[in-house]
Amino acid sequence: MKFSVIGCGKVGATIAFTAMLKNFAHEIVLVDVNSDKARGEMFDIMQCEAYEPQTLFHAGSYEDTAGSDVVIITAGIPRRHDEPRVLLLERNARLIADIVRQVVNYSPECILFMVTNPLDVMVQLAYEVSGFPASRVIGMGTVLDTARYRAFLSREFTVNARDIDAYVIGEHGETMVPVASNIKIKGISLEQFPAYSDKILTDIIDHVIATSGEVIALKGGTVFAPAVSACIVLEAIVHNASAILPVCTVNERYGAPLSLPTVIGKNGAGTVFDLALTKAEKERLDASVANIKTYVDELHSAIK
Amino acid sequence: MKFSVIGCGKVGATIAFTAMLKNFAHEIVLVDVNSDKARGEMFDIMQCEAYEPQTLFHAGSYEDTAGSDVVIITAGIPRRHDEPRVLLLERNARLIADIVRQVVNYSPECILFMVTNPLDVMVQLAYEVSGFPASRVIGMGTVLDTARYRAFLSREFTVNARDIDAYVIGEHGETMVPVASNIKIKGISLEQFPAYSDKILTDIIDHVIATSGEVIALKGGTVFAPAVSACIVLEAIVHNASAILPVCTVNERYGAPLSLPTVIGKNGAGTVFDLALTKAEKERLDASVANIKTYVDELHSAIK
Amino acid sequence: MKFSVIGCGKVGATIAFTAMLKNFAHEIVLVDVNSDKARGEMFDIMQCEAYEPQTLFHAGSYEDTAGSDVVIITAGIPRRHDEPRVLLLERNARLIADIVRQVVNYSPECILFMVTNPLDVMVQLAYEVSGFPASRVIGMGTVLDTARYRAFLSREFTVNARDIDAYVIGEHGETMVPVASNIKIKGISLEQFPAYSDKILTDIIDHVIATSGEVIALKGGTVFAPAVSACIVLEAIVHNASAILPVCTVNERYGAPLSLPTVIGKNGAGTVFDLALTKAEKERLDASVANIKTYVDELHSAIK
Amino acid sequence: MKFSVIGCGKVGATIAFTAMLKNFAHEIVLVDVNSDKARGEMFDIMQCEAYEPQTLFHAGSYEDTAGSDVVIITAGIPRRHDEPRVLLLERNARLIADIVRQVVNYSPECILFMVTNPLDVMVQLAYEVSGFPASRVIGMGTVLDTARYRAFLSREFTVNARDIDAYVIGEHGETMVPVASNIKIKGISLEQFPAYSDKILTDIIDHVIATSGEVIALKGGTVFAPAVSACIVLEAIVHNASAILPVCTVNERYGAPLSLPTVIGKNGAGTVFDLALTKAEKERLDASVANIKTYVDELHSAIK
Repeated sequence: MKFSVIGCGKVGATIAFTAMLKNFAHEIVLVDVNSDKARGEMFDIMQCEAYEPQTLFHAGSYEDTAGSDVVIITAGIPRRHDEPRVLLLERNARLIADIVRQVVNYSPECILFMVTNPLDVMVQLAYEVSGFPASRVIGMGTVLDTARYRAFLSREFTVNARDIDAYVIGEHGETMVPVASNIKIKGISLEQFPAYSDKILTDIIDHVIATSGEVIALKGGTVFAPAVSACIVLEAIVHNASAILPVCTVNERYGAPLSLPTVIGKNGAGTVFDLALTKAEKERLDASVANIKTYVDELHSAIK
Repeated sequence: MKFSVIGCGKVGATIAFTAMLKNFAHEIVLVDVNSDKARGEMFDIMQCEAYEPQTLFHAGSYEDTAGSDVVIITAGIPRRHDEPRVLLLERNARLIADIVRQVVNYSPECILFMVTNPLDVMVQLAYEVSGFPASRVIGMGTVLDTARYRAFLSREFTVNARDIDAYVIGEHGETMVPVASNIKIKGISLEQFPAYSDKILTDIIDHVIATSGEVIALKGGTVFAPAVSACIVLEAIVHNASAILPVCTVNERYGAPLSLPTVIGKNGAGTVFDLALTKAEKERLDASVANIKTYVDELHSAIK
Repeated sequence: MKFSVIGCGKVGATIAFTAMLKNFAHEIVLVDVNSDKARGEMFDIMQCEAYEPQTLFHAGSYEDTAGSDVVIITAGIPRRHDEPRVLLLERNARLIADIVRQVVNYSPECILFMVTNPLDVMVQLAYEVSGFPASRVIGMGTVLDTARYRAFLSREFTVNARDIDAYVIGEHGETMVPVASNIKIKGISLEQFPAYSDKILTDIIDHVIATSGEVIALKGGTVFAPAVSACIVLEAIVHNASAILPVCTVNERYGAPLSLPTVIGKNGAGTVFDLALTKAEKERLDASVANIKTYVDELHSAIK
Repeated sequence: MKFSVIGCGKVGATIAFTAMLKNFAHEIVLVDVNSDKARGEMFDIMQCEAYEPQTLFHAGSYEDTAGSDVVIITAGIPRRHDEPRVLLLERNARLIADIVRQVVNYSPECILFMVTNPLDVMVQLAYEVSGFPASRVIGMGTVLDTARYRAFLSREFTVNARDIDAYVIGEHGETMVPVASNIKIKGISLEQFPAYSDKILTDIIDHVIATSGEVIALKGGTVFAPAVSACIVLEAIVHNASAILPVCTVNERYGAPLSLPTVIGKNGAGTVFDLALTKAEKERLDASVANIKTYVDELHSAIK
């Protein structure tokens, strides 16, 4: 396996670090518009190998990414505290289009894994620019929001977060849809847990929606949870794990990029599933999709 | 196992994150003078648990650290680019003495693991303030410099860095001693490798000494290699691995804290070994120890 | 952590081997009525440590098990092909009672983990003889049958077996209840999978019930799946994972030992959950419990 | 990665099981002359996947092995207690030649990994029959004997066995050469350890030579240490680890297949190193090579 990481900010670098700890790839190429930054991260991570798995790290150019199996794109200016993700759009669209063209030129068979925000439109953009099938253009989407949802549920109900089947779907942004109905914990209904109350669940959902801003306010950015969320998708690809994860892909049925539970394996995204939703949840999802479509229209205006 | 991390800067937070990935502890408490920072890191790391091992994270006070098995102290102002580590001394001595007193009060049986620079004097300080036996006051020391040495050798000779028996010993600072004689790679002499030349080895040693400053200049700090170097010591404690690592301990034979190959297990530091050195290396080590002693004297002046 | 394994047949030895690979314990003591066997397994496993985690292995007596955190009991004559598990009862009851007495004498605070068949009555026996609370007497139960169910579903529906929330509950034996209703795969209903048909599910269930005998016929015994099933329970204990697993415990509500989804952590078994069952499934579970109760009565006759 | 395992005896099956636990391959094909045995092992291992990594297991024919990256050959009648390995020769030579022809036909680019005894001649045979370069015909060789040597040293000197640079080289058989001079433990001379005495080292060496027979006598065969020894070589291939391991390859310099420290990575065997030996050790190695050459001559007679 050969990975390339385009964009060596905190999230990009921490993805590369975590991927090294997990021995996902023989080779990882770091590319950043600031080549010093890429070189600094390369040294800092490659100096771990005396105590960790052996991954050959390079800091380099697009040429060095040639033949990558997976290219992780985190470049772009990160979201500021309380800033709507969509304001990032214009700043990032041209940049990402350029990156995707370069990447695809050198790695025409790769899986594109998008981390840059606003996530959903960036997936749409990468899909259009790359000419790849939708199965090979995957966005981190609500894998991160879902991680937060499950972590908070885990803490409140004292149960393993890996056992929790709760999802945030739709947009990776303000209109995200944390699905409250039908939550199962290894097949057990959440309502069966002694600690359950509607109030607790509502509070958790509010926290899920707020926590990205909360963490940015508290520590200046979100780093570890995004990196681990990226790595669980990478793991499913590397180990052909057929894991179900709410990644974002361009979805024909919905006519938009959005996050839904999706089977992930070595060929990228497979079957995409709908969840059984309540009427209210269905309406929120529709609104979220409508919102994404507005952004996609703005994208098309911006890059015309 | 219960860990506490005092100081949630980049290195402290990344140690906590990596320890979570490696499932070292049931519980990790994060303490920082900036409680928002600790809370932010706590959320960012605990939100990983949907895809990673389950570790109970708290952001808290010293009281919350009660009963810790290992307390990792990273607090203190980090070294600036090209700044001699010793200038950190006055700034950090009083701070660390206070921290150690608090920690020891709540966890009288813990192992103290020091990461704060200037490392060697901080180990001396923690040893004196804690009243712990030397075996339970361990500094990261040249475990980090050794990681860099082995990583560079690995890259140049295309061999697994984990197989390389090369050490940096002495001070974790300007007078560090990268030992060039007697390097073995899984028992094979370095000279037997086709790529070997004196020049290559000398260049690598120069790079080892320079790379901390280099990485700080390139990316603004060193994070991943320090975190992984801390975690290899923690792993040896958690898994009672009897691993040999060049940690820093207060050494009666030398009358100073310094880094030498040391057996690490669940009770902390065990046998400390001398390496076979050339005359020149012996002289460099003596100078390094003399340098540390000067700092220790300055410490004693500073905290009198 | 200190483990002891009582009974070094293929399953016991493979549990010890797998626990070593997973670095669960600092120390593992192997006890077998045939001390040569225990010694042979000890050498064969401890000779792995040059390439694997460091676990201190001993082949010893009950005295050597003193202070164990978990004691795994696999002793007893294994089930022969097509033999009803209950015929094992008389042969194994007296043996296991003796073992439990010895174990509890030396490790009064341990968790007893029962693997010996017929499993449910052995859990009852160990519970009575030990005087332990039910939370510290855990049987492997249908964790194994559930593994098989999920593996077959995984193969048929090309999805990660770890994501499948399907259970076998009730007796670990002829009257086991593979629950077909309400199967979720990471929250997605099985019926939503393109490959789904009633026929496929029925065939899988038939295979789950038959496969123990099938594997015994094909290779002479079942070894790896039982060992891994034991280790997932051990992992939940060692890492305090609050995982939900269908272990067997003595259940007050049912008045019998049986397997149901149960939260497992460092203190052993926690909350036990009922699954939403169809009327037919409920009847099968009642019959299974009735069957276990008959065996418990026979147990009480046998050891009177 | 696709692996095939030819021969599903205890060692072959345990290699497949351990490789699954370690997530080495997407797909593993099990082939055995007794197809029931292969099928039984396939079920027993694939039923682990509810709690372990996802590996697609097949029990099949040579046709199913097509496109394997690594083919592990363990087929052959195992050595009996006290039986000289060479008596196995005639029984196994024709069988292995047939297997190699089949394997190479379907996987012309694979790495052949030989586990069948008498090991050294089997490597020679596979090398000749396959027409592969020596780098792609690797025998487990003294990786196993070395594991035992390091494990015994580890136990006696209370040090991590992974840190020990001690080797058994030469024949994997009666004339094996445990090298006693120049043993390093992470670069520290064995003589520096407080527990060291010549007597202890001599006793350990005697034990290394005897232990294969000892374990066979005690438990009826050696299983776990051989499987783990195979897997450390597989790991070096899968993760391109450039690890130094004493595998057996056909060595031009010595004009024979023998085990020496060798760099292993994704392309198989790389540089082969000589150890610094005492005169006595050099003589023992010469005798060991001479012994192997005799067996190779017998092989050539047997398969003429």
